[in-house]
Amino acid sequence: MSLNELKVRLSNIHNLDKIGSLLGWDQQVNMPPGGTAASAEQLATLATFIHDLFTSDATGKLIQSAEAEVNGANYDSIDASLVRVARRNYDREIKVPTELEAEIQRTTALAHEIWVEARATNDFSKFQPELEKIYDLVRRKAEYLGYKEEIYDALLDLYEPGMTTAEVRRLFGELRQELVPLVAAIAENQDAVDDSILHQDYPIDKQREFGEMVVQKFGFDFQRGLQDLAVHPFCTSFSCDDVRITTRFNADWLSPALFGTMHEAGHGLYEQGSARELDDSILGGGTSLGVHESQSRMWENVIGRSRPFWQHFYPDLQKTFPDALKGVDVESFYKSINASKPSLIRVEADEVTYNLHIMIRFELETAVLNNKLAIRDLPDAWNATTEDYLGITPPDNALGILQDVHWSGGVMGYFPTYALGNLLSIQFYDKAIAAHPEIPEETGRGEFGTLLNWLRENIHRHGSKYESMELVQRVTGEKIQTKSFMNYLRTKYSDIYGL
Amino acid sequence: MSLNELKVRLSNIHNLDKIGSLLGWDQQVNMPPGGTAASAEQLATLATFIHDLFTSDATGKLIQSAEAEVNGANYDSIDASLVRVARRNYDREIKVPTELEAEIQRTTALAHEIWVEARATNDFSKFQPELEKIYDLVRRKAEYLGYKEEIYDALLDLYEPGMTTAEVRRLFGELRQELVPLVAAIAENQDAVDDSILHQDYPIDKQREFGEMVVQKFGFDFQRGLQDLAVHPFCTSFSCDDVRITTRFNADWLSPALFGTMHEAGHGLYEQGSARELDDSILGGGTSLGVHESQSRMWENVIGRSRPFWQHFYPDLQKTFPDALKGVDVESFYKSINASKPSLIRVEADEVTYNLHIMIRFELETAVLNNKLAIRDLPDAWNATTEDYLGITPPDNALGILQDVHWSGGVMGYFPTYALGNLLSIQFYDKAIAAHPEIPEETGRGEFGTLLNWLRENIHRHGSKYESMELVQRVTGEKIQTKSFMNYLRTKYSDIYGL
Repeated sequence: MSLNELKVRLSNIHNLDKIGSLLGWDQQVNMPPGGTAASAEQLATLATFIHDLFTSDATGKLIQSAEAEVNGANYDSIDASLVRVARRNYDREIKVPTELEAEIQRTTALAHEIWVEARATNDFSKFQPELEKIYDLVRRKAEYLGYKEEIYDALLDLYEPGMTTAEVRRLFGELRQELVPLVAAIAENQDAVDDSILHQDYPIDKQREFGEMVVQKFGFDFQRGLQDLAVHPFCTSFSCDDVRITTRFNADWLSPALFGTMHEAGHGLYEQGSARELDDSILGGGTSLGVHESQSRMWENVIGRSRPFWQHFYPDLQKTFPDALKGVDVESFYKSINASKPSLIRVEADEVTYNLHIMIRFELETAVLNNKLAIRDLPDAWNATTEDYLGITPPDNALGILQDVHWSGGVMGYFPTYALGNLLSIQFYDKAIAAHPEIPEETGRGEFGTLLNWLRENIHRHGSKYESMELVQRVTGEKIQTKSFMNYLRTKYSDIYGL
Repeated sequence: MSLNELKVRLSNIHNLDKIGSLLGWDQQVNMPPGGTAASAEQLATLATFIHDLFTSDATGKLIQSAEAEVNGANYDSIDASLVRVARRNYDREIKVPTELEAEIQRTTALAHEIWVEARATNDFSKFQPELEKIYDLVRRKAEYLGYKEEIYDALLDLYEPGMTTAEVRRLFGELRQELVPLVAAIAENQDAVDDSILHQDYPIDKQREFGEMVVQKFGFDFQRGLQDLAVHPFCTSFSCDDVRITTRFNADWLSPALFGTMHEAGHGLYEQGSARELDDSILGGGTSLGVHESQSRMWENVIGRSRPFWQHFYPDLQKTFPDALKGVDVESFYKSINASKPSLIRVEADEVTYNLHIMIRFELETAVLNNKLAIRDLPDAWNATTEDYLGITPPDNALGILQDVHWSGGVMGYFPTYALGNLLSIQFYDKAIAAHPEIPEETGRGEFGTLLNWLRENIHRHGSKYESMELVQRVTGEKIQTKSFMNYLRTKYSDIYGL
């Protein structure tokens, strides 16, 4: 009966974890400015309790006994999966000393403030000593976590369990070879697309209404979720029946909220689709950042920036924003939302250039961790690599090395998951199309049931039972690869830019 | 150094408690319908951890050693106060078996649903067996808690520590003697006041703007707090720097949101005024429900329904709602917001009749607990007592015995705190006026600094250091009494109704 005891314990831990997510939500969505300090204290107290509870000897013993108990059980069963995932997480969490985690927390809390200031004043030298401290701490953490080939493996594994640096390097190498010439070809035909119509007056309440209508059609259930506002949009869930997405609106730019809402709803659909029988356990919710991103990018890009989608929804959009879109035909609109051009800011990058932004970061992160690059040389390396990949050079550090929040938070090894998600979005979508060739037609009728059901059946319902690459193999019958993604991009963009 | 250890432990417990408050906030303000079940589970998990941590032997030993350590310390010091309050709470919490608390939780969760249905269908017989179970459980809890004179003492002490049933009975006896004839006198002059102007179109966004402007003038700090919407308005705080109030708006009735916002802001000012040095401990925040209610009622009624207040703010209100208030002079408006008339619903009762509603509930609760009244006879007893106190009889149980949520939640012994708050609001206010006779004049200029500073200095900053009746004695130099409140009412209402 250790298994039952383990289940209760893990369910309690899961409940406390979800409470932590609620604090995170509240900090970003509701909290008045004064609340910051006390909320950070409260979250720290909760995190310590959770950590102590999960890494206690008692938990370790329960996992061990439960392993004996489920020995022979079906690999796919909830019991076997629960024990397997508990073991993986436990082994990982006991490796890092609590004091080191606490030091990372303290250092990054402070470093975040300094990063904000450094970015505002465009002064990397302010942030440099903090970033050095953070890289030292992260390196120590990685050493505790352990790795087979290189130190970056340990960090990558935190966000995409099972993925290796060598594999990422191989994928990114392939991508680079294909993407750089594609970007160049598009650059030569820039005149083919004009996206200025997206930068006009788009009343915010209408944007909200339209976006929520669309994601409701996708299948996002507002009885089991909601949308609110946040400066940095995200999705979070407290159960499969309470999934929350956020967005931000620009009154003079249509894209961020429209596609941001579809993106976050993609994450939200994954969480809402997690099987109810997994919900009150660590198996509930999406399995990895990469798979999560595959869902958000599929709804945002593969569906939301597709021609059939707008053939159905554009008349509605035009009616919603008559002033901005009068006289603009659906084809011009379709092209405008797919405009591609090398830019300096990752979060505003299009489908073609986005992965290149990720690859720059991956290259720099691994270079630093492999002692091939000093922190003080990062700004120059950033600019040179950007020139190399995108053909443009940031005019200053605010638009370069200082643009992302991740490093100030000690989150190294995270960026690749964005690119993996892009690759997977197409691999999964191609598989869905192979099973149901009628999906694009349905999209053209504003219907998404077949696609959503396929995703639920093959991906969502499994929650975190399978590691991401295991899931990819099960669903697609192959490994993660770049071919499908590049085919998709080449076809789509050859058409749009007349290449 | 047990004291330091105790402080850390209590601070952790306090942090977890505040996280529990955040869940409560979220349930009432944000949560989509689907979230209910998982959130209840999460809150139950958290509550169990907090309870186990606080009632553990380790905590008991720390309190004991800390008591020796602070022996001789100034009674008013933080250390002495912390240990004193910890002892009181600990002794109380260890008395009730965890299983009984869990049974109460389970029973009331179910009973709440049944009460909702019983009220909707006006059928007490549905609720009766649940209420019988609840009274049994509450009685058992009271027996565990222990009491000196009568069982109700044990319950009252949960909400107003130190207060006794005998004292409440004495106060309510005095009130009844004065209030019943006052209500009758007002009834004879009903024509003197017409409040129909309050029931017109009042656009909700304007209501919100005006209400927030007013409470900002009171001193409510929106950098350290916010206002949101909730079906049942309340105030909660996660620290003195994050205090949240809620309200609800009726587009065709001005009073609920306007005075509700002032009321909740009164609670909020108390929480925001709690000394920062107490904030990260169980001493932070208001000391009892009664004292809390004294603050909310003071801002809502003594200030917010006063003539000087409206002499200043009425022109603004008239400008805000020109359609509704055109041609209505300030005196008519002042009278309309102070209209008094016996009514069936407690939450809509005016200043004169409100306490009578409380007294009805106190009489019935004590009668049941003293075995002088059977649950099945409660509806008749409710109607008879209402006739007795207010001169009217509910036409059905939905407007009678089934109107309040409290009993379905097992919250017996709570109602008196509302009436105690009303008494204390005047005792405190009179004391403030005695020290600063210029307060009404300042109110007439829309300034509240002198009053707020006096409240902060004498009441707010002390947090929970003193029990309520101890605080009353310190601040006013006397015990809680009915004289001041009755003087206030008689003077105000003789004027308004020309008695």
